[in-house]
Amino acid sequence: MIQKILIANRGEIAVRVMRTCKEMGIRTVAVYSEADRTSRHVSYADEAVCIGLASSQESYLNADKIIKAAKQFKADAIHPGYGFLSENADFARRCKEEGIIFIGPSAESIEAMGDKISARRQMIKAKVPVVPGTSEDLKPRDLFRVCRRIGLPVIIKATAGGGGKGMRLVYEEKQLYEAYEAAKSEARASFGNDSVYIEKYIESPHHIEIQFLGDAHGNVIHLFDRECSVQRRHQKIVEESPSPFIDDKTRQAMGAIAVKAARSIGYVGAGTIEFLVDGDMNFYFLEMNTRLQVEHPITEEVLGVDLVKEQIHIANGKKLRLRQKHLHQRGHAIECRICAEDPENNFAPSPGIIRHIQTPEGIGVRVDSFIYDGYEIPVYYDSMLGKLIVWATSRIYALERMRRVLYEYKITGVKTNIDYLRRIMDTRDFVKGNYTTHFIEDNSKKLQESGGNDNEIEDMAIIAAYIDHIVNSNDAPSSSPADNLPISRWRAFGKQKGVLRI
Amino acid sequence: MIQKILIANRGEIAVRVMRTCKEMGIRTVAVYSEADRTSRHVSYADEAVCIGLASSQESYLNADKIIKAAKQFKADAIHPGYGFLSENADFARRCKEEGIIFIGPSAESIEAMGDKISARRQMIKAKVPVVPGTSEDLKPRDLFRVCRRIGLPVIIKATAGGGGKGMRLVYEEKQLYEAYEAAKSEARASFGNDSVYIEKYIESPHHIEIQFLGDAHGNVIHLFDRECSVQRRHQKIVEESPSPFIDDKTRQAMGAIAVKAARSIGYVGAGTIEFLVDGDMNFYFLEMNTRLQVEHPITEEVLGVDLVKEQIHIANGKKLRLRQKHLHQRGHAIECRICAEDPENNFAPSPGIIRHIQTPEGIGVRVDSFIYDGYEIPVYYDSMLGKLIVWATSRIYALERMRRVLYEYKITGVKTNIDYLRRIMDTRDFVKGNYTTHFIEDNSKKLQESGGNDNEIEDMAIIAAYIDHIVNSNDAPSSSPADNLPISRWRAFGKQKGVLRI
Repeated sequence: MIQKILIANRGEIAVRVMRTCKEMGIRTVAVYSEADRTSRHVSYADEAVCIGLASSQESYLNADKIIKAAKQFKADAIHPGYGFLSENADFARRCKEEGIIFIGPSAESIEAMGDKISARRQMIKAKVPVVPGTSEDLKPRDLFRVCRRIGLPVIIKATAGGGGKGMRLVYEEKQLYEAYEAAKSEARASFGNDSVYIEKYIESPHHIEIQFLGDAHGNVIHLFDRECSVQRRHQKIVEESPSPFIDDKTRQAMGAIAVKAARSIGYVGAGTIEFLVDGDMNFYFLEMNTRLQVEHPITEEVLGVDLVKEQIHIANGKKLRLRQKHLHQRGHAIECRICAEDPENNFAPSPGIIRHIQTPEGIGVRVDSFIYDGYEIPVYYDSMLGKLIVWATSRIYALERMRRVLYEYKITGVKTNIDYLRRIMDTRDFVKGNYTTHFIEDNSKKLQESGGNDNEIEDMAIIAAYIDHIVNSNDAPSSSPADNLPISRWRAFGKQKGVLRI
Repeated sequence: MIQKILIANRGEIAVRVMRTCKEMGIRTVAVYSEADRTSRHVSYADEAVCIGLASSQESYLNADKIIKAAKQFKADAIHPGYGFLSENADFARRCKEEGIIFIGPSAESIEAMGDKISARRQMIKAKVPVVPGTSEDLKPRDLFRVCRRIGLPVIIKATAGGGGKGMRLVYEEKQLYEAYEAAKSEARASFGNDSVYIEKYIESPHHIEIQFLGDAHGNVIHLFDRECSVQRRHQKIVEESPSPFIDDKTRQAMGAIAVKAARSIGYVGAGTIEFLVDGDMNFYFLEMNTRLQVEHPITEEVLGVDLVKEQIHIANGKKLRLRQKHLHQRGHAIECRICAEDPENNFAPSPGIIRHIQTPEGIGVRVDSFIYDGYEIPVYYDSMLGKLIVWATSRIYALERMRRVLYEYKITGVKTNIDYLRRIMDTRDFVKGNYTTHFIEDNSKKLQESGGNDNEIEDMAIIAAYIDHIVNSNDAPSSSPADNLPISRWRAFGKQKGVLRI
């Protein structure tokens, strides 16, 4: 049985994991870089050790130092959080060799899902729908044939790729060859590997993912969906569960497919399958994340489950204690990522010293953060300060709650995206629950500080006619999974805006 | 439809009501005394007006000024919170006369339940079990006959009583007459009314209450139970739901009786029936509180309901939208009242300036407070700063979570009862869920700061043998109502204690 866990991470996720450990009576060891001496994850842990310089390479990515710390402090297990070493197969393997439990799937699972082509091939074998395209290095001779088969537009991607490098979007056949050559040469330069593949380009996709859990005894369950289409610079900033877009049939089908996918690779632990979903609710495997996701709390809120507790339970070799038939989505949860960044300046990080925090409180509110008054945000790491999660009986109530809570959250000393998130909550596409991964782009003007008023006026005109509708509706707290609210159930958002004084 | 509500209260409950109003798009008006200019309920409201001097009589109990403010600010409704004017029938009547909706039951319901003898008589008529005794002024000639019928020990109480005045406990018949005379003369001196009645004295009762809601259309539902036996100086400080003591049959019976009782007086709004429950789970009507209770959040957490939202819904004349058959207790919630007081000095209030607050965060945590850094707690009102509420899938997990969260909650500048509450969580009777209203008294030594170690050592010895038991148990998140945990499922509380560093 695991008695002590080293958390190989920092920031909010390290604190979040430690909170559950404390509740389970498990001792915690923090590792930290020299830049993180004053981080809350250090003071929160039972024991803590500095493992190197500020650079992640010297600290949070340094497997040797982390393994050494785990042995020195006699930790039975390592929880990798997300990012850093969480999807590093070599690290998972090293842990195993050293007799330390890695709280995550096997090195083999990580490896199989880490390489895009191998993951795709594996998923096809398991009969998981993938985006039409090739599963292997695309040869020039196959280029046009494959393209015609799957239909334009297509996207050419580097096998070893990431961050948009070695990627080309093609709308017309005449651009195809040139784009192929360009992608290859960029891939060679960026990754030392010019292998590329081709996929149908889903034009306005939803990014929807399924959480799942597998144990070492072959049991796999899914924990339903999260809608993650609100993204800036390919990073999610607002997530909700259930997705307001998909219907229940699609939701069930995606869940069943996720279970099949995880089972096909003998997955043990918590994982997530990300899908692209087109306007007709066709869904395609995008990737599998072999770790806890940033947005896992919305699943916890809707299902009443502590995913970190389940991870530890599984790592102890136990059988899953959650049963698929007992899991039902209840109400609606929304998460906003609170970042020290400047949305008016292309979301540039804005590190500095936090002067004062007023934490939101009250019914249906959860804050997962690691900041405190006087904390200096280091420049070396992610700009995320924490996550604000609300739960309510229905989507519209959750939205209203999030608006209330964003008004209550006050962080002074550094620039944050709190006002920007509030504007997202006020945007018509978001309120209607009808948005794709292009949401931020499509609404960029409305989401600017100066664009806010126009937006408000426009919305108010629409809303005014519906106020009675809503106020008069006998809208019972619902336990139905999706609450795909029509515009007629909006509440008087605009109306309230002028009067909030907090 | 209610568009604007005046909140005739202060502190945490005023802020709590306003939070829901904001989420519903309802404007809020705060009233405040001169001592409360800097209170958070004032800054949180959309509009605010000072109504008088610090003394409650001059402000929060001054019906004239509050009515005047409501008319001046054109509030459609008044929410009285708890305490102050919330159970004042004259105030409810005044509101009605002035065309202002009183968010609470009718003046007649308040009146019927406000007088102890009339309430008792009403409940007997409705076939609600009451503590054996008399329902009217006890005459000397009936004294011995009644006492023999109900059996010793008995308690003699002033009809107009409260706060222990005019109350006498009698264990032996030879003390009966003397006690009767003493109670009468004290009642006369205290209340100008020497009427007394007699009841069987339930020696080690549980104080368990049932929340209910009734609408103006004759529909009444109950929202299950709250265990409120942890009391100091006759005031609750820790509450939980479901009660770990009663079984499901008793729970259902109490719920049904509460519905019957509320229906018998045509109750409209949110209310609570308090019961005394003896060791054999016989339950007796104690009193009906015709307003929101301090501890209402634990019901909200377990049922996923916003009681203030339902109150407003009912006040709008709507039908109940919750259905009895859809309400199921899910998991377990515990509330701790955080007070500025000194538990080592008979819980004396300790007003002062709050220097700094670190608010607990993370999964399953709710904070309902009204304090902020630099806030000066006035000496004039209640010492409660707010409430800490946790939810988890089972009682034992909720308990572990509360322990974690009490460690996280830091309030500096004034003395609080946070450490004391932590010791309650560590007390064997509390952990076992087997405690009565004598809990604080029975455990007074263990609950003292200096008594803590003995307690810990004793518990550790017991706990040690059971650690494996728990760690190894396949304890699935349960949706069963009561989780009356045997000692064998304790977790290693004592063990963890020494190592917590936060």
